[in-house]
Amino acid sequence: MTAPFTSLSEFHACLAAMPGPDAAAQTGAAERNGRLTKPPGALGRLEDLAVWYAGWRNDPRPAIVAPQVLVFAGNHGVCAQGVSAFPPEVTGQMVANFEQGGAAINQLCKVFGAQMEVHALDLDTPTADFTQGPAMTEAEVVVALATGWDAVDPKADLLVTGEMGIGNTTAAAAVAAAVLGGDAAGWTGRGTGVDDAGLARKTEVVAKGLALHLPTDPLNALRCLGGRELAAMAGAIAAAHHHRIPVILDGFICCAAAAALEKAVPGTLDHAVAGHLSSEVAHGRLLAELGKTPLLSLGLRLGEGSGAALAIGVLQGAVACHSGMATFSEAGVADG
Amino acid sequence: MTAPFTSLSEFHACLAAMPGPDAAAQTGAAERNGRLTKPPGALGRLEDLAVWYAGWRNDPRPAIVAPQVLVFAGNHGVCAQGVSAFPPEVTGQMVANFEQGGAAINQLCKVFGAQMEVHALDLDTPTADFTQGPAMTEAEVVVALATGWDAVDPKADLLVTGEMGIGNTTAAAAVAAAVLGGDAAGWTGRGTGVDDAGLARKTEVVAKGLALHLPTDPLNALRCLGGRELAAMAGAIAAAHHHRIPVILDGFICCAAAAALEKAVPGTLDHAVAGHLSSEVAHGRLLAELGKTPLLSLGLRLGEGSGAALAIGVLQGAVACHSGMATFSEAGVADG
Repeated sequence: MTAPFTSLSEFHACLAAMPGPDAAAQTGAAERNGRLTKPPGALGRLEDLAVWYAGWRNDPRPAIVAPQVLVFAGNHGVCAQGVSAFPPEVTGQMVANFEQGGAAINQLCKVFGAQMEVHALDLDTPTADFTQGPAMTEAEVVVALATGWDAVDPKADLLVTGEMGIGNTTAAAAVAAAVLGGDAAGWTGRGTGVDDAGLARKTEVVAKGLALHLPTDPLNALRCLGGRELAAMAGAIAAAHHHRIPVILDGFICCAAAAALEKAVPGTLDHAVAGHLSSEVAHGRLLAELGKTPLLSLGLRLGEGSGAALAIGVLQGAVACHSGMATFSEAGVADG
Repeated sequence: MTAPFTSLSEFHACLAAMPGPDAAAQTGAAERNGRLTKPPGALGRLEDLAVWYAGWRNDPRPAIVAPQVLVFAGNHGVCAQGVSAFPPEVTGQMVANFEQGGAAINQLCKVFGAQMEVHALDLDTPTADFTQGPAMTEAEVVVALATGWDAVDPKADLLVTGEMGIGNTTAAAAVAAAVLGGDAAGWTGRGTGVDDAGLARKTEVVAKGLALHLPTDPLNALRCLGGRELAAMAGAIAAAHHHRIPVILDGFICCAAAAALEKAVPGTLDHAVAGHLSSEVAHGRLLAELGKTPLLSLGLRLGEGSGAALAIGVLQGAVACHSGMATFSEAGVADG
């Protein structure tokens, strides 16, 4: 599967040509839902999830058998500004930890039966410091988008994208502000845990980046202020839409990258649900801007795709109930 | 495993003699948690869950390998008052559906690898109508408590209790009001979906029951206003505490039964977390009274243990991360 774009404008054209869900499968699923052995609406949001999933999978009685989790890692020139509590070397160390199966996301993939892949994106060549110039050239961001696109298994039936990158809550805050509007202070949070002075420094750095690169369009904001792992997540989410693979969005960084897609072409995230509400401070605002209600709210702020991976279980439960339950007539149960 | 009580006062004595979590295992788990490859606190509530689970399992690095789901079914004399949108025959029909694998709870047990058992409790002999007299004799409620107690597999490492019983949101509202205080209107909801007239009738019926049986102690409230499936859930939750098996509480009916235990002997629910917030209107109030914050809030109101079963995945994720992740030194990752 080779990415069908070699420039940002071709990628934009690609987003503008995305398929929708299958209306007949959605209608069939809704009709089936009404005949299952439960009072109407008693499974709450699980019912909506199942019908939504059915539409995207073009199957009124679908199954989830091949969830895929993709973790992208990148390094950030903006770390030179002292925006993180951890040194940039940790990005590569955590990639090794992912590869050896020792991270949180590895355990969650095992629990929910997801296939997991890690893609380290030029860790030895951090993006440029966005307070000095664009984080990436167009060629660089297109390579990152294509890496994400190509990483999606067309046979997967559910996708989670996660990330690792010391400094990337700074990049994500800048992208969110550039794409959705508002000032640096409204989008900048503590990330892995900077103190008050660190937060003030991060906010200043984000403001400086916005002053240097705005105004700009959403995809160019991803290039100038984002990072390779953000672009790769965006590419993977777009590829999933192209293949009609439903997506569970993760936390603040994933959603900032996703927001660039949605603002570039509204509707690009129709195949995606929000996995969780992160405790990174501006994530709730970001989800509200995207019109997504999170499935979970458990105070996670780890990244790696961890919150979204945890939500795989909720979607598996929803689809299993929908497709596995007996109807009133099959079970011989009186229908109200 | 035979229940160690033959009267309500012996059951009460049993509750008063429950073990606590293991402090050393809990301390060991908290210490391990601090060394895992993640920023401190980044797994949010999953970290607290894992440490809590470790304490109850007496193992600083536990695993969940044998979750058990018990569904208890009972019929209610109070149905004669027209409190449900469904006829009482549906209880038995749904028991057959559980046995044939066609209900929501069957699918959720499959997804999360839980062993499931259904216990139909004298469906042909409904409890007495609590507006006329006590729902059960002491002998009857003790049999139901013992059925629940005996159903718990001492080798299980996690328990969910669910229920099925046309009319049982009426019984649960009456038990909640009797045990926690407040009037009938504050505890009575739409259950499987009664209309406004039905809700008014239910509320009146609950008020009538309270007027007839109050004041009374919590366990006697379970006898006079509850039902066999509520008592069986209470017995199972108590047995789980006795065996130090952590419990995930389900919705309104499960929590009303559990509240009788907690009010009889405070601390009886220390081994339990709230699986979800049901959309049955008074469930949030009930959880607040119990001091429990739900893991999920997805608008479910089905019963059967469904919301709690869905939360098994969250607990599995928490424990898998805790016990499976590498420490900073194992992974060679720099620690902040």
